[in-house]
Amino acid sequence: MTNGEEARVSAAVFDAVCAKADAAARAQKTLSRANAESKNELLLAIADALDARADEIAGANELDMIESRDAGMDAGKLDRLLFDVPRVAAAAQGVRHVATLPDPIGEIVRGYNLPNGLRLQQTRVPLGVIGMIYEARPNVTVDVASLCLKSGNAAILRGGHAAERTNAATLAIIRDVLAAHGFDPALVDTVDEYGRDGATAMMEARGHIDVLVPRGGAGLIQAVVRNSKVPVIETGAGNVHIYVDKSGDLGKAIPIIINAKTQRVGVCNAAEKLLVHRDVAADFLPAIARALAEANVELHADDAAYGIIDEAGIDGVNLLAATDEDWDTEYLALTMGVKVVDSLDEAIEHINAHSTGHTESIIAEDYSAVEEFTGRIDSAVVMVNASTRFTDGGVFGFGAELGISTQKMHARGPMGLREMTTTKWIGYGTGQVRG
Amino acid sequence: MTNGEEARVSAAVFDAVCAKADAAARAQKTLSRANAESKNELLLAIADALDARADEIAGANELDMIESRDAGMDAGKLDRLLFDVPRVAAAAQGVRHVATLPDPIGEIVRGYNLPNGLRLQQTRVPLGVIGMIYEARPNVTVDVASLCLKSGNAAILRGGHAAERTNAATLAIIRDVLAAHGFDPALVDTVDEYGRDGATAMMEARGHIDVLVPRGGAGLIQAVVRNSKVPVIETGAGNVHIYVDKSGDLGKAIPIIINAKTQRVGVCNAAEKLLVHRDVAADFLPAIARALAEANVELHADDAAYGIIDEAGIDGVNLLAATDEDWDTEYLALTMGVKVVDSLDEAIEHINAHSTGHTESIIAEDYSAVEEFTGRIDSAVVMVNASTRFTDGGVFGFGAELGISTQKMHARGPMGLREMTTTKWIGYGTGQVRG
Repeated sequence: MTNGEEARVSAAVFDAVCAKADAAARAQKTLSRANAESKNELLLAIADALDARADEIAGANELDMIESRDAGMDAGKLDRLLFDVPRVAAAAQGVRHVATLPDPIGEIVRGYNLPNGLRLQQTRVPLGVIGMIYEARPNVTVDVASLCLKSGNAAILRGGHAAERTNAATLAIIRDVLAAHGFDPALVDTVDEYGRDGATAMMEARGHIDVLVPRGGAGLIQAVVRNSKVPVIETGAGNVHIYVDKSGDLGKAIPIIINAKTQRVGVCNAAEKLLVHRDVAADFLPAIARALAEANVELHADDAAYGIIDEAGIDGVNLLAATDEDWDTEYLALTMGVKVVDSLDEAIEHINAHSTGHTESIIAEDYSAVEEFTGRIDSAVVMVNASTRFTDGGVFGFGAELGISTQKMHARGPMGLREMTTTKWIGYGTGQVRG
Repeated sequence: MTNGEEARVSAAVFDAVCAKADAAARAQKTLSRANAESKNELLLAIADALDARADEIAGANELDMIESRDAGMDAGKLDRLLFDVPRVAAAAQGVRHVATLPDPIGEIVRGYNLPNGLRLQQTRVPLGVIGMIYEARPNVTVDVASLCLKSGNAAILRGGHAAERTNAATLAIIRDVLAAHGFDPALVDTVDEYGRDGATAMMEARGHIDVLVPRGGAGLIQAVVRNSKVPVIETGAGNVHIYVDKSGDLGKAIPIIINAKTQRVGVCNAAEKLLVHRDVAADFLPAIARALAEANVELHADDAAYGIIDEAGIDGVNLLAATDEDWDTEYLALTMGVKVVDSLDEAIEHINAHSTGHTESIIAEDYSAVEEFTGRIDSAVVMVNASTRFTDGGVFGFGAELGISTQKMHARGPMGLREMTTTKWIGYGTGQVRG
């Protein structure tokens, strides 16, 4: 087996990664038919083992933390890398929660009899082998492994160099439990030992890996989207907008904007842009800017918004002139782009031109404005008079999520267990032939 | 706008194709909100115009036919290229049929209230711009245009050099009707004027075209799958198996095998391989081989099957020894590979190793064998005691089909209007913020 003329990694690494994926695929054929009871028992045993052996993981994580700190990793990344005993315990609780979720496998999506009596059933089945390329966040290793196992899928992971020792310790425990429960440890495997080449080989492994899900910063995701020959589900980037219509209720607008911008900074469903209708800009913008200033949010405003906010003379406001680049930037910080629009139409056009297709919200009391906005905005989620922070698998009732898809193919929005499946049609006949 | 460092076509062609796709996308934003009534009126007007102006299409087709005949095109391809007045009339009838199908847009896939009162609705919406790369079959132009318009999508088409005049005449009519009905003609466009570069540019046009569907021979499909940066739905290849279990009923097996192999040759759901359990091979194979010989089917048999069939001394049998290559070949001809297997398990393993994942059928009366086969076979459609020829959007009740997906992402099996959609979540709130 070779990767042909377009090889970008050595044949040895490509073959090794494909061999792991093929072993995972063989093991997945058994897992795909396991009932929910046995999958849940497996997950509970993994959770118990993570608790019992948390010291092993935390010890490995200490070494990863020291190396990354010495290499000058910033505080935010170090915090995401930290996987100490309390965090392992929290991850184990997450696994126990996944065990409580309904099993998507076997659901009959559609079923009916053809006129000739053939009984057709479109049945939900696992996707197969899910590849995950993510940055150094060891809890993702546990999350993805538990979601994949519950949905009957195998997982091939590439978890970021900085977390390699932590991920290895975590996977050793998961694989021990798989073996002890009669499942093939090949179901959850890593290509970390091949470094970046491992990730590249995963992208080349079409026919071996069924779907690749990148999770992390925009750079990582775009690199996978551009280079992968395996089908990709694009996740996470959120240049999220809130539009305050001229019919908007200021009493709703302020708490929603503050919540969407500040309740948790640095997540993909946090709001990044505020568009305000010109008719209410003079009334609303000073009040909103005051609330944002109190929450220490820096404002990057277009000319019209700048003028209104500047004139209001708000204490402590941090006001800058927006550049063209602002409208396409996901700040992931206490920063918000602010723009005055002449119409609902301009708001919709601006959002559809600059959004990453994650989540947008309208603040409006006018029925037709709401219909127009929800109908024309081309994003995974459109909120009306509600915070954009609700776009989340947990909030949507999925129990847990693999990520939030910003693409249109296969899954759009939060991806839970159901989105990790495909279907198979089964036709039960009694000798039917086509006339 | 450029296609960056990985450019394989000239920037001019890439920009021109993207400009067409972007114009299509703008037009699609209006179409996506059109109600079913106006879309159906549009389709009926297109059907009427195709009938009224069939001479224009047939005249252009005559020139295409002459050129292709002179260039030595084989009879099968010439037949697929033919688009004379009766065939245009048949295509117009197909458009009228699409007008009668239910509109998938607006369907609420899931809807429920969150505990905080936010009303969540997952709503079916069009995919956007669908790119289609197909071989010289002018009826596909009409089929795809009508399916795309009904499902609220725009279409960018590359239809094969040999049919360029025919497709241009067809599209001119469709675009005239679009304009006359107040729709933007950019909704259905071709990149045929750029030749092969047009197809290459479509594959590079990520962010401009939402999904690319190749339809045609295995070579075309694999070239698109390998090279496209736009998400692809893989269609069509069918190395289709029928397995006769030791519990199989010979009375059902023979008509099903003959129907699946011979009712229509050269289509993707026609059976290509026959696996027979060793315990019944001596009884069943001579009878089946006799029926296949009468239907002029050439048999490529493994050693065991060859021995049994040869010994039976069947009149007129055309029996050859199978090679390893046979098991991975889609003949699309009156040829069938025949193999004796030792067990149900061997049959399943063989099929999962060699199938293209389209359709397989088991002939069996044993309950456990049926459960095992339907559960373990990893194909889009699994039939039990029924012909594989039923895998078809029309037969499944979809009314029409874009193709048959053999991949697991997004859609699997026959693709009708529903499979040409994605979803959008809408959350109707009253001021909710996340705690």
